[in-house]
Amino acid sequence: MSPIAPDYAFATPFLNPPASPIRSLMPYAMRPGTISLAGGYPAQELFDVEGLSVASTQVMARLGGCLQYSNIDGQASLREQLARLSAARGLRCNPDTELAVTGGSQQALALLSRVMLQPGDHAVIETPAFPNSVQALRYTGAAVHTVPSGPQGIDLDALDELAARVKPKMVCVVASFSNPCGATLARERRLRLLELAVRHRFLVVEDDPYSELRFDGEAVPPIAALAEGEARHWAVYLSSMSKTMAPALRIGWLVAPAEIRRRCVGAKAADDMACSAWIQEVVAQYLANGRYDEHVPRIRAAYGLRCDAMAGALARELDGRIRFSKPQGGMFFWARLTGDVDATRLLPYAIEHEVVYVPGKAFYANPAEADLHAMRMSFATMNEAQIAEGMVRLGRALTACEANEPVSVSLAA
Amino acid sequence: MSPIAPDYAFATPFLNPPASPIRSLMPYAMRPGTISLAGGYPAQELFDVEGLSVASTQVMARLGGCLQYSNIDGQASLREQLARLSAARGLRCNPDTELAVTGGSQQALALLSRVMLQPGDHAVIETPAFPNSVQALRYTGAAVHTVPSGPQGIDLDALDELAARVKPKMVCVVASFSNPCGATLARERRLRLLELAVRHRFLVVEDDPYSELRFDGEAVPPIAALAEGEARHWAVYLSSMSKTMAPALRIGWLVAPAEIRRRCVGAKAADDMACSAWIQEVVAQYLANGRYDEHVPRIRAAYGLRCDAMAGALARELDGRIRFSKPQGGMFFWARLTGDVDATRLLPYAIEHEVVYVPGKAFYANPAEADLHAMRMSFATMNEAQIAEGMVRLGRALTACEANEPVSVSLAA
Repeated sequence: MSPIAPDYAFATPFLNPPASPIRSLMPYAMRPGTISLAGGYPAQELFDVEGLSVASTQVMARLGGCLQYSNIDGQASLREQLARLSAARGLRCNPDTELAVTGGSQQALALLSRVMLQPGDHAVIETPAFPNSVQALRYTGAAVHTVPSGPQGIDLDALDELAARVKPKMVCVVASFSNPCGATLARERRLRLLELAVRHRFLVVEDDPYSELRFDGEAVPPIAALAEGEARHWAVYLSSMSKTMAPALRIGWLVAPAEIRRRCVGAKAADDMACSAWIQEVVAQYLANGRYDEHVPRIRAAYGLRCDAMAGALARELDGRIRFSKPQGGMFFWARLTGDVDATRLLPYAIEHEVVYVPGKAFYANPAEADLHAMRMSFATMNEAQIAEGMVRLGRALTACEANEPVSVSLAA
Repeated sequence: MSPIAPDYAFATPFLNPPASPIRSLMPYAMRPGTISLAGGYPAQELFDVEGLSVASTQVMARLGGCLQYSNIDGQASLREQLARLSAARGLRCNPDTELAVTGGSQQALALLSRVMLQPGDHAVIETPAFPNSVQALRYTGAAVHTVPSGPQGIDLDALDELAARVKPKMVCVVASFSNPCGATLARERRLRLLELAVRHRFLVVEDDPYSELRFDGEAVPPIAALAEGEARHWAVYLSSMSKTMAPALRIGWLVAPAEIRRRCVGAKAADDMACSAWIQEVVAQYLANGRYDEHVPRIRAAYGLRCDAMAGALARELDGRIRFSKPQGGMFFWARLTGDVDATRLLPYAIEHEVVYVPGKAFYANPAEADLHAMRMSFATMNEAQIAEGMVRLGRALTACEANEPVSVSLAA
């Protein structure tokens, strides 16, 4: 090839695609001996390999019938199972007209974003938030606005004011054990969010990969499950099997008013035709076998122990130097360095001490709003002993950083 | 829910989503006893269920390691195998910088379209063409122009003239055994297409699901494989396992210049995170087992016999009433009614006589350009006896239609 590539005329959102600060940490996180609190991955050793193998073997016995194109909206068997699972969370829907199977909840958000948004439109997402969610909105060319989120979830007064001003078409939240904050929106705040949706005519889009991972406190129903009357037209629910079963299934789903769901299915036809009928049948079979209901309590309990271990070790090893609120579920601690050192300055010391977290600023759609002292630490993938050791190392790293000791690791800004 | 849905402010391309004339035929095509030539599906009874079961069982033995998130660009094992397969077709590439795994070639086209196109931009696709390809381009908000295609493939003089006028960023073709035309672009025409790409600075995007299904004549290399010097910057290759292995795998791939491929991978992160690591490992294992190289000649031979059967039966049963050129590969006959009756008028008679095809007008992005006498007939999913019987029925249906006999089937316009 001639050495110099031409200046391709990329679409505006792809002119200068953002690097992923989380992915750029992965080489460090995967070093042998390093304790990684950086990934957003579920625990590999907790996957129900046996249950999935059983379901896979059952499907293999009828594999010839599972190899064609699936319906665009998903296999009927899986839609029925997912409607049942949604109902168990409090959200009833018609699996034929209101539910569709998607490639994780990420695809559900991407489809919905494309159906609703185009250049000139406005969307809102809480901040901090999962960067891929922000990107799904931004790639439509719409303007993406942020509303601060914290331990109580999205700031509803700020949202009310912003919505009056910019008239967003969509407002996106992770209402249960958010990534990265670990925050949960209380029932009365969910109701108020629905009121705002009706008043300002925006879709409330709840992405819910984590709510079943509650090990503490009382369950709160999905936002869409709380919607009544007019509000039911404005609530969309997205969920995923990635955190409770396994990411490699790439199975998520959306529940939306029929007019919206129909267009998302049309968008999916042009995007990737359909999800794999084979994998969909494996997931449907796994659910029909009752394994899911046995498996989720097991990972919930394991994550609860890991969360306890992190809270205990943080208090023990970094008392007063890192502030945090202990989450009631999910996979993440959102913690804050209380001294002069910020999370980016600490990171190379942490890597040198063989413990890795993600600096909080990676999760702000608008860098100017970033809390530079914040950090996200996942307790999902390490066991209790590793987590305790990780906090010891983090304490040592912080001491070394505060003392301005030389550090051998150097990271791109 | 309150009975009346609000007028949602959908993005422009989704205000009035098109109905799919092909999908609307499926209920008729699936009636017991009906001979369906309508689907774009590969033959189910020819899937290598045994080979896939062997690969799946091998992967199941190491399933615990295949359940996490895949790399966004695909599992290294599969990228290596797909690079090898591309090389066997004449196209060499670096599996780490120029190749990415996608959810079928449909997703590859959708990603590329989003990376390149936005409202105000122009794209070109041959016509007739697969409607989902047209939709992938249209959903970006770009203007989609058509260039006529026929038995020799896309009209390059017309393209040259159009490109000078509208400055398209992408020109999309299926160069081998196109859907619906069954046409193949000869080598010298591929070279001229590359010249036009360099001159007008557009990407030539070749979607190639069918080239390995050649049962007659000599193989022509992919367009990107013929690109030299500057032209290499302007050629993108898309392919899929859907027609040669099975659609339910949802595995395709793209080969593109690194700067373009990198952005498609970024778009995929926001679209669906990655393809299933599990399924990718099954496909990589299947390829590594050498089953693919054994399987493809088998389906190629079977499709060749079916194509012969259709050509023979068409000549025998509809001599002079339907004109066609026999394809050298793929799955489709593009045929033309020579009399007064057009393909839409004939369809209810055909359904009544228990044979279903797709009227050609379904494949025209611009309805005003449609050849109303054209029809697409797939020979892939019916055996030789069924195909022969289907042509007998089609002859009877045409006679009934020409005689204006009453017909009980009524189709939406």
